[in-house]
Amino acid sequence: MATSTSFQAGTSSVVPIRVQDGRLELLDQRRIPDAIEYFDATELDEICFAIKSMIVRGAPAIGAAAALGLAFEAKRLVLSAAGRVDFFEKLERARDRLQATRPTAVNLSWDTDLVFRFAEKERNSQAPLDVLTGKMVEYAQWILVRYGETCKQIGEYGADLVGQSASILTHCNAGALAACGWGTALGVIRSAHRRGAQLTVFVDETRPRQQGSRLTTWELLADGITPTLVTDSMAGHLMANRKVDLVIVGADRIARNGDAANKIGTYTLAVVANAHKVPFYVAAPLSTIDPAIESGSQIPIEEREASEVTIINDKEICPPGVQVYNPAFDVTPANLITAFITESGVLRPPFHSAIEKALNARKLTP
Amino acid sequence: MATSTSFQAGTSSVVPIRVQDGRLELLDQRRIPDAIEYFDATELDEICFAIKSMIVRGAPAIGAAAALGLAFEAKRLVLSAAGRVDFFEKLERARDRLQATRPTAVNLSWDTDLVFRFAEKERNSQAPLDVLTGKMVEYAQWILVRYGETCKQIGEYGADLVGQSASILTHCNAGALAACGWGTALGVIRSAHRRGAQLTVFVDETRPRQQGSRLTTWELLADGITPTLVTDSMAGHLMANRKVDLVIVGADRIARNGDAANKIGTYTLAVVANAHKVPFYVAAPLSTIDPAIESGSQIPIEEREASEVTIINDKEICPPGVQVYNPAFDVTPANLITAFITESGVLRPPFHSAIEKALNARKLTP
Repeated sequence: MATSTSFQAGTSSVVPIRVQDGRLELLDQRRIPDAIEYFDATELDEICFAIKSMIVRGAPAIGAAAALGLAFEAKRLVLSAAGRVDFFEKLERARDRLQATRPTAVNLSWDTDLVFRFAEKERNSQAPLDVLTGKMVEYAQWILVRYGETCKQIGEYGADLVGQSASILTHCNAGALAACGWGTALGVIRSAHRRGAQLTVFVDETRPRQQGSRLTTWELLADGITPTLVTDSMAGHLMANRKVDLVIVGADRIARNGDAANKIGTYTLAVVANAHKVPFYVAAPLSTIDPAIESGSQIPIEEREASEVTIINDKEICPPGVQVYNPAFDVTPANLITAFITESGVLRPPFHSAIEKALNARKLTP
Repeated sequence: MATSTSFQAGTSSVVPIRVQDGRLELLDQRRIPDAIEYFDATELDEICFAIKSMIVRGAPAIGAAAALGLAFEAKRLVLSAAGRVDFFEKLERARDRLQATRPTAVNLSWDTDLVFRFAEKERNSQAPLDVLTGKMVEYAQWILVRYGETCKQIGEYGADLVGQSASILTHCNAGALAACGWGTALGVIRSAHRRGAQLTVFVDETRPRQQGSRLTTWELLADGITPTLVTDSMAGHLMANRKVDLVIVGADRIARNGDAANKIGTYTLAVVANAHKVPFYVAAPLSTIDPAIESGSQIPIEEREASEVTIINDKEICPPGVQVYNPAFDVTPANLITAFITESGVLRPPFHSAIEKALNARKLTP
């Protein structure tokens, strides 16, 4: 049984996803750094709301939370379903509802599919459903723990790239909060810091939801790294003044050719890094690769509500009548990416074959 | 005598800088769109505070406000100075204090120098100081009115470039508020709209001070143009999806070679526009060109306080202990600029000779 300490973020004792007294609890990331509050996401309605409203966010964290949410829903379905056939039909609908909450990050579909298929193997067996659902919860917890372990592997490979001294720019939050533990992009920074590397870390504030200024700074401070916060538009100025040695970001979905969707603004950052010959790394677990899509043009880009842009701290910042365009992600083409940092090593171009090889080796069950 | 209606912004009846009952009043741009309030900047301390705190902002508006501020200070010095020599010494110190308020925009130095030199011609004459200071106020008012006229000329030249239909992205506020009337970049949009052009206008919110979401949207709505607000980091995504035909921005200082300082984020935008072959125009009066500097590396970049980034709507958005880097401007090299739109026409590369020619023709007095 996973204990909450497995998912500790650096020196912080705060756990983004926890199973406690038979309930699924999510650290409410909307409230950080103001408050450390947990949201009870044990019911299907609640976990769906938590994902949509970004109480939980970050591709791996969404995937793990949804996997746990589906397993908890399965436990309830044992009590309410009219027999085995009905149980599996309702479980499938629950999976579909979870997968529809957010379209871009692939881990959500991937991890809920894993849990669903794990159960489905017993569709035509005689295995008691309460035993099966207990195993589903354990499997979903393995997915969660596994992300934390994966991130530490990513961290080690990334730390080799970073070396003993570097000035790093990161965008959004690809830390313990987003990735169930150590973090992907922040996992690399964390691992390099633990090795004693001298780091300057520039953090993009990441409008509109400010995951950089609210979450990434908070995680880095907890680890004893003093971040330097900048607005998103400063990247070009920083690089023109040679203040950035490398960029590291996470990813929400990676196509077979290496095109990568990530938080809006990542593409702009990649273009600017390319113009200044600054290496641009994407740190992500292999489960963020979507084997079903060949290129980034097939990745659906979520558009979110206008109020994310127009309201800050409960107050409208612009006059009434303004239209807003608010895509939550963008796609960085593979040719702007120097390398992917994954749990099975650093993948370099040509990405298509490197990704193919890594996918074939990935481990789906304990 | 200039009347306030000369500086009307489009269909809005709000005047950014006005002389009323012998007082210099500035529309408090920190409060827009929440409130229309005027700040009394008649005293030297007040006008310096107004410039530093961005009650008045935008290179031309700062220049005109400071010119008026110096003229008003001259009127007071007539009463307090111990003779003609003392008057000119104190006037020079007042000019220096004004010029030290913000380092990047050249119009501040340029326009206060114009007013000072206008006065200095009478240093050794017998002309009564009260008559001289009256003329200084008139001259400063001419500078203010002249910016409005200049912007309309910029608007006409720019509208020719825009044509009958375009999707335009702009950054910060280079409108009536920033440029004493019609506006520079927004002047072009305004003039094209008046000609009946079908325009889609994307407005960068422009963190940290949000001149885009607060001011530019407000001006456009007043003109009957519905803007589409985006966060600064979305430029790449917009361009990758072919949603932007051209970018128009203003400038705070232009070097002889065509390198241009403007609001932070402009350089990032120019790099991204260049990568997508989207034309990138800088609209500015010739007084924004600094003949004293050869290239952008000589332009001082103001760094402003951390609280601009960390506090929004009176609330800290990040945890305590975060460092902030907050350059207020960046420099876009001439090679990323398609053309300058000025009151004497569109300047195209090679910029050095085009700028030289335009500077030789500019008019400094009524």
